[in-house]
Amino acid sequence: MHHREEGWVKILSIPSPSLQNNTADADRLIEALKNRLATPRLEVAIDLELLQRLPFILRQEDSELCCTLFKDHGHWVLVDLQPLHSAKPPAGLAVDLGTTRVVLRIVDLSSDALLGESAFDNPQIDIGPDILTRIHYADRPGGLQHLQQLICEAVNRQIIALCHSCSRLPEEILLIAVAGNTAMTHLLLGLCPHWMIREPYIPVTNRPGLIPAASLGLQVNPQARVFVFPNIGSYFGGDLIAGILYSGLHRADEPALLVDVGTNAEVVLGNSQWLIACAGAAGPALESGVTRMGTLAAPGVIDRVRLDRTAKRFKIHTIADQPPHGICGSGLIDLAAQLFLSGLIDFRGRFQARACGDRLIDIDGTEHLIVVPSTDSATGKALTISQTDLDSLIRSKAAMYTILETITGTVGIQLEDIATFYVAGTFGTFIQPTSAIGIGMLPDLPLKAFKPLGNSSLGGATSLLRSDCSIEEIDRIRDRITYLELNVNQDFMNRFSAAKFLPHTDRSRFPSVRPPVDL
Amino acid sequence: MHHREEGWVKILSIPSPSLQNNTADADRLIEALKNRLATPRLEVAIDLELLQRLPFILRQEDSELCCTLFKDHGHWVLVDLQPLHSAKPPAGLAVDLGTTRVVLRIVDLSSDALLGESAFDNPQIDIGPDILTRIHYADRPGGLQHLQQLICEAVNRQIIALCHSCSRLPEEILLIAVAGNTAMTHLLLGLCPHWMIREPYIPVTNRPGLIPAASLGLQVNPQARVFVFPNIGSYFGGDLIAGILYSGLHRADEPALLVDVGTNAEVVLGNSQWLIACAGAAGPALESGVTRMGTLAAPGVIDRVRLDRTAKRFKIHTIADQPPHGICGSGLIDLAAQLFLSGLIDFRGRFQARACGDRLIDIDGTEHLIVVPSTDSATGKALTISQTDLDSLIRSKAAMYTILETITGTVGIQLEDIATFYVAGTFGTFIQPTSAIGIGMLPDLPLKAFKPLGNSSLGGATSLLRSDCSIEEIDRIRDRITYLELNVNQDFMNRFSAAKFLPHTDRSRFPSVRPPVDL
Repeated sequence: MHHREEGWVKILSIPSPSLQNNTADADRLIEALKNRLATPRLEVAIDLELLQRLPFILRQEDSELCCTLFKDHGHWVLVDLQPLHSAKPPAGLAVDLGTTRVVLRIVDLSSDALLGESAFDNPQIDIGPDILTRIHYADRPGGLQHLQQLICEAVNRQIIALCHSCSRLPEEILLIAVAGNTAMTHLLLGLCPHWMIREPYIPVTNRPGLIPAASLGLQVNPQARVFVFPNIGSYFGGDLIAGILYSGLHRADEPALLVDVGTNAEVVLGNSQWLIACAGAAGPALESGVTRMGTLAAPGVIDRVRLDRTAKRFKIHTIADQPPHGICGSGLIDLAAQLFLSGLIDFRGRFQARACGDRLIDIDGTEHLIVVPSTDSATGKALTISQTDLDSLIRSKAAMYTILETITGTVGIQLEDIATFYVAGTFGTFIQPTSAIGIGMLPDLPLKAFKPLGNSSLGGATSLLRSDCSIEEIDRIRDRITYLELNVNQDFMNRFSAAKFLPHTDRSRFPSVRPPVDL
Repeated sequence: MHHREEGWVKILSIPSPSLQNNTADADRLIEALKNRLATPRLEVAIDLELLQRLPFILRQEDSELCCTLFKDHGHWVLVDLQPLHSAKPPAGLAVDLGTTRVVLRIVDLSSDALLGESAFDNPQIDIGPDILTRIHYADRPGGLQHLQQLICEAVNRQIIALCHSCSRLPEEILLIAVAGNTAMTHLLLGLCPHWMIREPYIPVTNRPGLIPAASLGLQVNPQARVFVFPNIGSYFGGDLIAGILYSGLHRADEPALLVDVGTNAEVVLGNSQWLIACAGAAGPALESGVTRMGTLAAPGVIDRVRLDRTAKRFKIHTIADQPPHGICGSGLIDLAAQLFLSGLIDFRGRFQARACGDRLIDIDGTEHLIVVPSTDSATGKALTISQTDLDSLIRSKAAMYTILETITGTVGIQLEDIATFYVAGTFGTFIQPTSAIGIGMLPDLPLKAFKPLGNSSLGGATSLLRSDCSIEEIDRIRDRITYLELNVNQDFMNRFSAAKFLPHTDRSRFPSVRPPVDL
């Protein structure tokens, strides 16, 4: 998928000085780098601390050097210099800086080997589970500093543990690549997020760039740099830029689409020529919290549902095969698709009393369908789905489809013309495309068009560590994206209304979906 | 002399964000900078600490900003950002980092006004008065750190005093420009000078570049940068590059020559097309120490001598008109010229007993000429010059002339073709060109060709503060210089022997010099 370029670690042989070649140590080093990088002109910054060590390193018996340097657009930044014979292999750290979970991955910069990975809850959750609460908290005296300290200290602790688990030292980490949403990266950098959530929604920066790790108090190599993925604005963060990078969408010949469903649905459409992106509220019912039994993917959570039409019972699958206690987005979509295809709900998403039989119960005046009877559930209580849950899911799927329809319509292509449909995140990993198509949430493309990406934000950050891409390429992705403000106008609302049916008012768009004949 | 470019301080007006212009704060700032600098593409690094303050500064009532940014080759470094209405005027500090004396000059970066100046003895003198002793001391455990600490702490103390004297604050200093010889800049930066004095004489770096002041422990603005003038090698330092810059020699149409006489004589010849430089031992007799009465320019030191041929007595002038206690280089040259022109010494520099009369005395078997009788001297002892002193002076002047002859000969021009002859330093300030020509030390050019430069090293550093030049221009000067290794071969020795006469074996070279007819 990626064009493999040279790594960040270079092995150099520096000639000893002589009366014929009596230039300064730094000049001979730069000359060797020029040869190694095959560039006649080289702008390279050498940190003072490395310059202070340089003459001693150059005069060790072994004349071979292990250098680590990063290219930041036109110029290079030298961050490490060791005699090859005693060099500690340089490492890099990829960070997926999520609002809820933070994932770290440590990579060997010379071999590109993955050394270890670990995840932890973002400690800012204690301040507030959602972004908004944290942004308000940042306004208090010392609030921003506290939020920054919470995340930096947690990252420091995890670095120690992660390094320990793979027999590395934090000092060996020379590059940290961070992909997160705009609010999370602002809080990491101590940048005030106050104006991000107030019209006209202004972040402090869109390109934090390459920052000394020491200035963030990150306890890694003193010369280490932190690259923070750029964002497009307050609502389109570096996590998505990393995702695009990881998917390779920006290098595709045919139009491809990338969807990341979290609290918002973020969508990028494009190819090697153009990129267009938008974000909209589509996800809450899908990710968690909206249905009472809805939850994040975790052991015991229902991720797949099949309705055995003969036995008239649900065959459920839970993550890690634990007794069920909730359902995640993909399970919910499976469930809705099965209900629709078996006639338990109609094309409006309404329960069909006759078909549901005694599974349909009334709780506080609302119809609920029993998915898992109390005898089979982990909680001892029946797991149910209500008409309200279904309505919410349908609004979410309609919003998603409308966003997809709008963004393709904007560039004048049909949803069917999309060659590859990348689905990022946990949602992408667990979702059954047939079910998502079945309820009309995703377009009716051949199944092979759908590509789950997994943690694409972490994947993109890893790409930079492996120098599969340059900072320049990342900034170019950012700069090429046209951000489409989703105006919720009459047109959008009309499309949204048409998409609120299963799979859609216009059935011809979903030829593969075959609901019961009696509908 | 200098082409005036834009200063480092820019006043910007940043538009408030709107739904139509909802880019990040940093982007609006960069956009305004692009307009201000009239450049379509701008690579600018904004320190994290400034980025953290940026949104608050942009949202003050007054929308005008005072920015300070330095251009480092292709990219800019933003170091300060203040609301205009409450801005503290940014200041810069020029440093002439001498082995013996250090001179500081503080300049207002927005008005280019000189705010104050002060000088102090380099505290490393306590370790050793000369460079060599300090370089050896640096080899001891902790020695280099101690030397660095001595100079940095002294600079910090002087900054406080200097700022106080001109009602400024050290935090207002944003740029420090340091010009010094290679050894002194290495000691300032904590770079090991060990290999500078050992064949093949290798410094750690030739281009220290722009360094965060904080990394040297300099207590100025936390964002301040230190620019250290580049050197060519161990024996041609940044002080000379600064001198060339200050003289404007590198922009001259006609060949010009710059001479800096210290322990070594350093000579640069060139114009806007080419530059050639060399250094050689020529100075000891001129600067101090070699003649017992020789000393550095200071109150009570003889700086000018005339021989009243009628009264047959010396008319001396001392610095600050104090009673005489010694003689400096320019006084010595004056004296030798007067002795030669009045026939008290012959063309070999030998005392003429008849002409000298009872002024000539014998001390320990060596002839001495009384310059100031004991009754007139500050010490109560006669000030004398010995045959040994004269011999030493003649060797120095011969070395100087030979160096000048060699460097011009190398590029195939005559000494007479030199349009401007810059003489740097105290030596340049006090020397009488007629006397220097009279003994054949300097070529017989029209007097108006000689231009004293004063402290050209400090002057060059000041030019950068005033943005009369760019870092790029300084590096270009360095890169354009061809360094001529003075091989003391037979050819050089022949020229040297011919120059050991007053004014020269080839009298036709000094048509303006008219010694007594009887010689």
